[in-house]
Amino acid sequence: MTGAYETLEDRFRRVALLDEAAGFLHWDSSVVMPEASAESRAEQVANLQVVAHETMSAPDMADLLDAADGDDTLDGWRRANLHEMRRNWIHTTALDADLVAARARANSACEMVWRQARPKADFAMVLPFVEEVLRLTVEAGQAKAEKLGTGVYDALLDQFEPDGRAAEIDPVFADLADFLPDFIDAAIERQARTPPLPLDGPFPVARQRALGLRIMQTIGFDFTKGRLDESLHPFSGGSPDDLRITTRFAEEEYLSALMGVIHETGHALYESNLPADWRRQPVGHARGMVIHESQSLLMEMQACRSREFLAFAAPLVREEFGKSGPAWEAENLFRQSTAVERGFIRVDADEATYPAHVILRYRLERAIIGGDLRLADLPGAWDDGMEELLGVRPPDDRLGCLQDIHWYDGAWGYFPTYTLGAMAAAQLFDAATRANPAIVPCIGRGDFRPLLTWLAENVHGLGSKLSTRDLIARATGKPLDTAVFKAHLNRRYLGDA
Amino acid sequence: MTGAYETLEDRFRRVALLDEAAGFLHWDSSVVMPEASAESRAEQVANLQVVAHETMSAPDMADLLDAADGDDTLDGWRRANLHEMRRNWIHTTALDADLVAARARANSACEMVWRQARPKADFAMVLPFVEEVLRLTVEAGQAKAEKLGTGVYDALLDQFEPDGRAAEIDPVFADLADFLPDFIDAAIERQARTPPLPLDGPFPVARQRALGLRIMQTIGFDFTKGRLDESLHPFSGGSPDDLRITTRFAEEEYLSALMGVIHETGHALYESNLPADWRRQPVGHARGMVIHESQSLLMEMQACRSREFLAFAAPLVREEFGKSGPAWEAENLFRQSTAVERGFIRVDADEATYPAHVILRYRLERAIIGGDLRLADLPGAWDDGMEELLGVRPPDDRLGCLQDIHWYDGAWGYFPTYTLGAMAAAQLFDAATRANPAIVPCIGRGDFRPLLTWLAENVHGLGSKLSTRDLIARATGKPLDTAVFKAHLNRRYLGDA
Repeated sequence: MTGAYETLEDRFRRVALLDEAAGFLHWDSSVVMPEASAESRAEQVANLQVVAHETMSAPDMADLLDAADGDDTLDGWRRANLHEMRRNWIHTTALDADLVAARARANSACEMVWRQARPKADFAMVLPFVEEVLRLTVEAGQAKAEKLGTGVYDALLDQFEPDGRAAEIDPVFADLADFLPDFIDAAIERQARTPPLPLDGPFPVARQRALGLRIMQTIGFDFTKGRLDESLHPFSGGSPDDLRITTRFAEEEYLSALMGVIHETGHALYESNLPADWRRQPVGHARGMVIHESQSLLMEMQACRSREFLAFAAPLVREEFGKSGPAWEAENLFRQSTAVERGFIRVDADEATYPAHVILRYRLERAIIGGDLRLADLPGAWDDGMEELLGVRPPDDRLGCLQDIHWYDGAWGYFPTYTLGAMAAAQLFDAATRANPAIVPCIGRGDFRPLLTWLAENVHGLGSKLSTRDLIARATGKPLDTAVFKAHLNRRYLGDA
Repeated sequence: MTGAYETLEDRFRRVALLDEAAGFLHWDSSVVMPEASAESRAEQVANLQVVAHETMSAPDMADLLDAADGDDTLDGWRRANLHEMRRNWIHTTALDADLVAARARANSACEMVWRQARPKADFAMVLPFVEEVLRLTVEAGQAKAEKLGTGVYDALLDQFEPDGRAAEIDPVFADLADFLPDFIDAAIERQARTPPLPLDGPFPVARQRALGLRIMQTIGFDFTKGRLDESLHPFSGGSPDDLRITTRFAEEEYLSALMGVIHETGHALYESNLPADWRRQPVGHARGMVIHESQSLLMEMQACRSREFLAFAAPLVREEFGKSGPAWEAENLFRQSTAVERGFIRVDADEATYPAHVILRYRLERAIIGGDLRLADLPGAWDDGMEELLGVRPPDDRLGCLQDIHWYDGAWGYFPTYTLGAMAAAQLFDAATRANPAIVPCIGRGDFRPLLTWLAENVHGLGSKLSTRDLIARATGKPLDTAVFKAHLNRRYLGDA
């Protein structure tokens, strides 16, 4: 007779396989699908989600989870798997079917209006829709909070970052918010003394693609188990044995696409090195958005926007684009790759200003979810916050509170993971290079194997066995804090090199 | 309360959506997937099939089907839908799970050995494996025959061609077998008098692709709802609002790829015009393999290997490949497109000799399934049959009974649909052009709309409402017979034009 735990493994394996199928359908719709087929594709994916949801909400699941909890033969991995099973089950089943359907409708309606309101900078147009999204988000957060034993904001955060807690984020972000304004001033002032030379294009897409493929290969992407394609919104998807990353090329400029490829390669390498023995089980999945983002940012910000890597990459860049001269020397590529600028738009922001954008959103969504800020007052609060954190005031809501899709699409509680990921990237990279001082010199020769070995052992191979908290403490010897991140920023932007 | 019939519609809609998802995963694995991911993909697809199978074999299905049978409020389309639901249900549930699993294993094992045995022309190597495949195929055929109330061969045929019956095929194929040898002699003799001029390449793949896209557009393929790609084995897949056809290009020769594109476009247009009101219901699906093949062959053989179409296409062909001279005139392209040759290999065969290949296979599989021919004696029987039907004797089994995957992969009962499809194509095209004499002149101007209008009304738009038998009788005024097909062959290959 099959035990409760084994039955659960079968159920979760089925759900994971359904998710994989949906993931490849998503890749297809982003890369190759004719646009007119979007509605039909949505029905195919919704059908997979319905089947997965039915599997997760089978009436005997609670009993199975309880029975497995009482099974004292389970080893550490199985126990951790069971823990993640219960979390997934709570998130899937905490909401009744009516609320799930109402949220899907409200999010979709709001997103459609937002797409029209953003170019017009017309927040009033989308306000009633996002109010409905918020109302249902809070209702969902309350239902999940009750089952998880957390506050409402933490329950929403938990959807993206398991065990993430606002009480831990608050002091960290407060410290960063304190640090950033002066730091940004200093970095901009310093860079003004030696501005980077312009990199003149055009940069043919075929050459950018060839360069991207070479860099991916250098970093360690295995093309027998994945692909690089183009899509409007770059992403990393697929499955650990078939990783699909995408980018977007523009002829005028090559750096964003290249760094985008490196960023997505970081995500993909995490997926590819997840514990194979736990494939398609909750404990075998990536830990959460903080660690995922740490892996893309570690590769992009820590490893590849470094002087060492750019010294390796500069000849490849010159060769692919047929360039020469001082603008194409490693030092100028480094200046281009680390230029700091105050801007209104988060997705265009650099490493130094990005956290300010995130902290603003985190503060605002905390206040809104907590009932301390009305959505109607968001535009003013946004602009005030930008002025305080970044010293600029958006001229309109298109460049302000209408810029990101997240809130309008129902993704409340997501934003802090970006900057927590950046901090984790700095702290993990620092620990890795202390543990193996050969890592940086090797990166300077285009050899990422020492870095990947450390990451596989200390991050990738652990899947979801440890909490983010425990994983970081184990890998770096201390909890996530701002010290290493600030030290990295100071060194890179204010240092002597 | 939802009625039995409505509940069944929901169930079959779910299964259809799972099949669509699997279909796009199949496209992906044929066109873009890295080869090393095949095993993982197989698990994703198998998981979808398991879910679909569970849906179809739910314990209440028999009661639902019976209850819906007794519902006298159902109109004609719903009644036809219910009829197809029951057929699908029988095919899905007639076999117990052990037999399904044993067949999957045996077919897969045999196919793997066949891939090695074929290049070595070593039938003995694969014999024990195909004997096991046959044993399980007969067992499955018996189980289905019992539920369908048919003979074993008919039950296997029914999987590909619903309601297809050997008793109707026998006289038709006997008549064709009688006609073909002399006809082929005469056609070859006649062509020897005016052999086609060679078409010298190379034909760059990019130009072949451009030509294929132009011809697809001409025929009426809607690129907002589909794509053309490349794969090792050309096919037509996707869903009615997202049709994916593939081809394979070779630089030395363009005609096979172009005709392949036209063939798959014929399949795709059938799918695109299926009754939208019955999307994702059994009655909204294509009727069966005979009608499906008739639509690809009608487009390829009847419409596009015609003098009229080739007169339209010749300037496009010359333009794409930058050619001129007598070899590139329409008349020579017609001769190239209709050249008759006795060969060993079915998939390379022309319109005139193809039926002989099919009739041979049909006779042999009937005899084997019926117990009148042992598999051990297949090679000799094959070679004798080739000599009788086509006047050539294969030098070895690679060019003989090892050439096709079908039997080795468990697809017994499939072969006759190719030639029944060719006959149906001739009969339908004849009826169409009688009903609207503008059809052929319009094709000569690259205007396929009159033809498609007739096909939409008389074939595509009917889905599976009528049996193949009734559909052909309604569209052409008589049952499928050999007369029109033979008249077409006589006119094209022995006529005066």
